[in-house]
Amino acid sequence: MTNSFSRAPMTSVEQTKNVPKTPEEAIQQVVMANRILGNEGILDALGHVSVRNPVNANTFFQARSISPSEATPDDILEIALDGDVVTKTKMRPYGERIIHGAILKARPEMSAVFHGHFAAVIPFSVTNTPLRPITHVGSFLYQGVPIYDDYEPGGGMLIRTREEGERIAKHLGQHRVHLLRGHGCDIVAEDLPRLVASAIYLKDNATIQWQILLSGKEPKYLSPEEAKAATEIGLFGASPIDRMWSYWIARVKRSMPDMKD
Amino acid sequence: MTNSFSRAPMTSVEQTKNVPKTPEEAIQQVVMANRILGNEGILDALGHVSVRNPVNANTFFQARSISPSEATPDDILEIALDGDVVTKTKMRPYGERIIHGAILKARPEMSAVFHGHFAAVIPFSVTNTPLRPITHVGSFLYQGVPIYDDYEPGGGMLIRTREEGERIAKHLGQHRVHLLRGHGCDIVAEDLPRLVASAIYLKDNATIQWQILLSGKEPKYLSPEEAKAATEIGLFGASPIDRMWSYWIARVKRSMPDMKD
Amino acid sequence: MTNSFSRAPMTSVEQTKNVPKTPEEAIQQVVMANRILGNEGILDALGHVSVRNPVNANTFFQARSISPSEATPDDILEIALDGDVVTKTKMRPYGERIIHGAILKARPEMSAVFHGHFAAVIPFSVTNTPLRPITHVGSFLYQGVPIYDDYEPGGGMLIRTREEGERIAKHLGQHRVHLLRGHGCDIVAEDLPRLVASAIYLKDNATIQWQILLSGKEPKYLSPEEAKAATEIGLFGASPIDRMWSYWIARVKRSMPDMKD
Amino acid sequence: MTNSFSRAPMTSVEQTKNVPKTPEEAIQQVVMANRILGNEGILDALGHVSVRNPVNANTFFQARSISPSEATPDDILEIALDGDVVTKTKMRPYGERIIHGAILKARPEMSAVFHGHFAAVIPFSVTNTPLRPITHVGSFLYQGVPIYDDYEPGGGMLIRTREEGERIAKHLGQHRVHLLRGHGCDIVAEDLPRLVASAIYLKDNATIQWQILLSGKEPKYLSPEEAKAATEIGLFGASPIDRMWSYWIARVKRSMPDMKD
Repeated sequence: MTNSFSRAPMTSVEQTKNVPKTPEEAIQQVVMANRILGNEGILDALGHVSVRNPVNANTFFQARSISPSEATPDDILEIALDGDVVTKTKMRPYGERIIHGAILKARPEMSAVFHGHFAAVIPFSVTNTPLRPITHVGSFLYQGVPIYDDYEPGGGMLIRTREEGERIAKHLGQHRVHLLRGHGCDIVAEDLPRLVASAIYLKDNATIQWQILLSGKEPKYLSPEEAKAATEIGLFGASPIDRMWSYWIARVKRSMPDMKD
Repeated sequence: MTNSFSRAPMTSVEQTKNVPKTPEEAIQQVVMANRILGNEGILDALGHVSVRNPVNANTFFQARSISPSEATPDDILEIALDGDVVTKTKMRPYGERIIHGAILKARPEMSAVFHGHFAAVIPFSVTNTPLRPITHVGSFLYQGVPIYDDYEPGGGMLIRTREEGERIAKHLGQHRVHLLRGHGCDIVAEDLPRLVASAIYLKDNATIQWQILLSGKEPKYLSPEEAKAATEIGLFGASPIDRMWSYWIARVKRSMPDMKD
Repeated sequence: MTNSFSRAPMTSVEQTKNVPKTPEEAIQQVVMANRILGNEGILDALGHVSVRNPVNANTFFQARSISPSEATPDDILEIALDGDVVTKTKMRPYGERIIHGAILKARPEMSAVFHGHFAAVIPFSVTNTPLRPITHVGSFLYQGVPIYDDYEPGGGMLIRTREEGERIAKHLGQHRVHLLRGHGCDIVAEDLPRLVASAIYLKDNATIQWQILLSGKEPKYLSPEEAKAATEIGLFGASPIDRMWSYWIARVKRSMPDMKD
Repeated sequence: MTNSFSRAPMTSVEQTKNVPKTPEEAIQQVVMANRILGNEGILDALGHVSVRNPVNANTFFQARSISPSEATPDDILEIALDGDVVTKTKMRPYGERIIHGAILKARPEMSAVFHGHFAAVIPFSVTNTPLRPITHVGSFLYQGVPIYDDYEPGGGMLIRTREEGERIAKHLGQHRVHLLRGHGCDIVAEDLPRLVASAIYLKDNATIQWQILLSGKEPKYLSPEEAKAATEIGLFGASPIDRMWSYWIARVKRSMPDMKD
C-alpha cells in the first residue's frame, strides 16, 4: 500500500485496522470523527476536522460549514490543499479550511487535522504557560506545545488567508499540537483515531495540569524519554487506539440514536 | 424590510436567515430560545428571555411565569414595554418582565433580552472584577461589563418596579451585558440567536477567565480592536450564528423528544 | 386548615399549592422529592429526605433503606419522631432516620428534613469557613450555617442514637441548615418543595462561594436584610417555588422514563 | 462457605448478599462492574477491573482488551495469577493484567482489583501530596495512599512484566489503594461492590481534598480511629454497600438500554 499516509520516519506508531483505503471510507470516518468530537464535548457548533484523501494526497475531506455533530456523508466536501473546493457543489465550506490544507501540505507523513476551541487550552494560550505531559494519556505532547500569536491584523483572529495558513503550518512545525492565543488549538496526527485521541487527551492533560498549577506546587512531569515511550508503546499503539475508537463510536450510537453509522 | 429591528448604526452585524417576520414566527423562536437555554444549562427554573414583536416595536413576547424548558407557544404572552400584559389572559407574567421592557425601550436597535443567574458570572459581580474577552467567543464583551448594585431597598434584589427597570436600562447603557451584584446578568442582542450565543459564550468566557485569575497570572486579553473584529467577522457573522442556532436546536430535539418544534 | 405545618410566626413564607393534605399525597410527594434529589445530583445512593405526616404531627414519611432515585410509594415507611417504625413491615429503615425525627420534633413549624453528603459543603465543614449568602438563590442561609463536630466516639460519624439525634437538633437550633464536619449537611424547611430548593441552592451557593474564596478576594455578601427579603419575596415565594417544583418534576420524567408519577 | 474470599482477619467488613458463588455469577458481576465504572465516568476506553474465581483462588476473571462499557459475558477471560490466559481463545487480554494477578496473589483476603486513570488522583501522584480521608465516604483510605514511581525504564509507564507486577504488589502492601505517578491508581477490595465503591469515592475524596488544598487552608481530616469506624460501620457495611450496588445497576440500566443484565 503506497497511499499518502504510509508511515514516514518521523512517526513511529503502529498502523491500526482503522485506516480508510477509499474516498468513501475516508468520508465515513471523518463523519464519525465529527460526531465523536461533538459527543465528547470537544467541539460545539464551531471547530472542524479533516482527513486526507487516501487516493490523492493533494486533497482532503471535511464537512461543509455545519456543526460537527450534525455532519452526514452528504455534507462532506473534497478540498484541495490550497483551500479550493473540488466537489462540485454550492455548499459553503468552513472559512478556516485553509488551516487544514496548509498543515497537510507541510506534514506529508500525517493525514488528519483538528481545529477547535475547547476551554481547557485557553489558560495556557493567554499566559504563555507551557503545556507539558503530566499524565501518560498526555504523553504525546512531549515535543512541546508552542503558542501562536501572529494573527492577521483586523482578521478577527480567524485564519482565512493562504498567507496566514502558511504561517500557521510553519509555526506548528514538527509538533503535534500548537495553541492559538485566546482562540484554541490545532492538532495533526497520523489518522483520525489518533487525532481524536489527541484532542480528547489534550483536554484532559490541560485540565489536570492547570488544576495542579493553581496549587503553586511544582509537579513531576513525564520525562521526554518516558513520554515518548508512553506514546509509542502505550497511547498510540494500535491496540489501545482501536479500543478507544470503538468506545467512542459506541458512545455516539448510544447518545445520538438519530445518527446511524 | 422596515421592521422594528432593522440594524441601526450602533450594531454592524450581518442579518441572519433566522429573523422572524411575523408574531407567530417570533413566538416560535422565543419558545425555542427558552428550550435551548434550559437544555444548555444556562437557565434552570428561573430566568427569562424575550423578543420584540416584529410588527410592533412597542411590545415583546415572553413566556408566562413558567420554567424556560417547559415553555410552549401557548405559554407566550405579548407584553408592552412598560410591563402591561397585552394578551387577554389570566396567565401570570414574570415579575421581572420590567427588565425586558425597559431595555427594549432604551435600545431600539436591539430586539432580544436575557435575564439569568448562571453561576459563572457571580464571582465577578461580588468582587468588582472586570469581565473581559479572554477568548474569541467572548469577544462580544469588548465594550465592558459594568456591575449593577443599586437595588430597591427591601425589594429582595428583584427588579419589579418601573423605576428600577429604568435604572437597569440606564446602567446597561450601550453595553451588551451587565452584571447584577450577587444575582446574575442581563444581556441584549440584535436577535434571539445572537442573544443565546451571548449567554452561552458569556458563561464560557467567565468560567475560563476566573480559572485564569485564580492562578494569579496576568493574562493577555483580546485587545478592543481584535475583539471588535472577532465579533463582527467571526462570532456574530451570519454564517457562524446560523450554524450555532441550528446546532442548539438539534440538541434540544435530541434531549427533549417530548418537545417538538 | 389546621394541619401540623400551618405557618407559625417563625417562618413567614407564603403557602404554595403543593401542600399535601393526606398521607397518600405526602407519600407521593416524598417519592418525588427522592427522585428529584437523585436526578439533580444532590443525592447518590446515600442520604435521605422526609416529610411530616399531614394528619399526625408526631410521625413522618421516609423511604426504607434504598437509594433515593429508586424509591416508589411502596418503599415509604411511616416513622415516629423517636425513630420507631410505625408501618407494619419487615423493610429496613435508614439508620440515620433518628436525625429526621429529632429535627421535626424540635421544629414544629417545619415539616421536611434532608440529610445528604454532596461535595460542595465539605470544604466549609472541615475548614471552619462560614457559608454565607453570596447569590440571591443562597439568600435563605442568612441566619448562618453552624458546623456540627460532636460525633459519638466510635460511631463512625453516623447519627444513629437518640442522644446524638437530640444533639443534632439542638445544634441546628433555629437555623435552616447546618453542616456535619467531614460528612455533609442537614436541612429543614416548611415543605418538600422548599426543602429541595434549599438543597439545590445550598449546593450552588457553596460551590460559587468556594470558587471566590480560592481567589483570595473578599466578596460582598448579601446583607442579612437583603437576604431575608430575597428569601421571603423571591426564592421562597409561592410562585417561584411552584415553578421550580414543576421544573424538577419535568426533568425527572424526562430522564427517568421508567419512573412514572 | 469456604471460598477463596471468606473474610480473613485483615478485613473486618460484613459479607454482603452480592457475593458470587459460581464462575458464572462472578462473570456476570464483573461485566456489571465494568459497565458501572464506565457509566459513572470512572473508566473511559482504558483501565480494567477483575474478580477472583470463586471456585479457584488461583485464577481471576477479566474482560479481553475492550473498553469496559462495552464488555459482555462473552468478552470475559479466565486468567491465572501469573498472567497466563486460561480460557482457550484467540481474544487478546489486557497487557496490564499482570497487575491484577500480582495483587490477588499477594492479598489472599481480597478478591477484586481495579486499575484506572481518572483525573482526580493525578495531582496527588505528581506532587507527592498525601491523599487522606477528608469526608466519610473517603474513610476507607485511612491506611494511607502510597505513590508508586518505580517504572520499568523504557516501558512507557505500563505495567506489563511479572517483575514489575511484583513490585506493584509489594508497593501496595497492605493498603487498599496506591497511586502510580503520572498514570493512575490501583485498588483492591473484598469484592466487586466494595471495589466499585472504593473507586467512586476515591475520586470524590480526591476531588474535594484538592479543592480544599487550593485554598491554602489546613483542613481537619478524619482521625484514623473515626475513619476506621466509618469504614466498617458505615461505608463498607453490608447494608450501604448493597444499596450502592443496586443504585449503580439501576443507573446502568437507565443509561445503557442496549446493555441488558
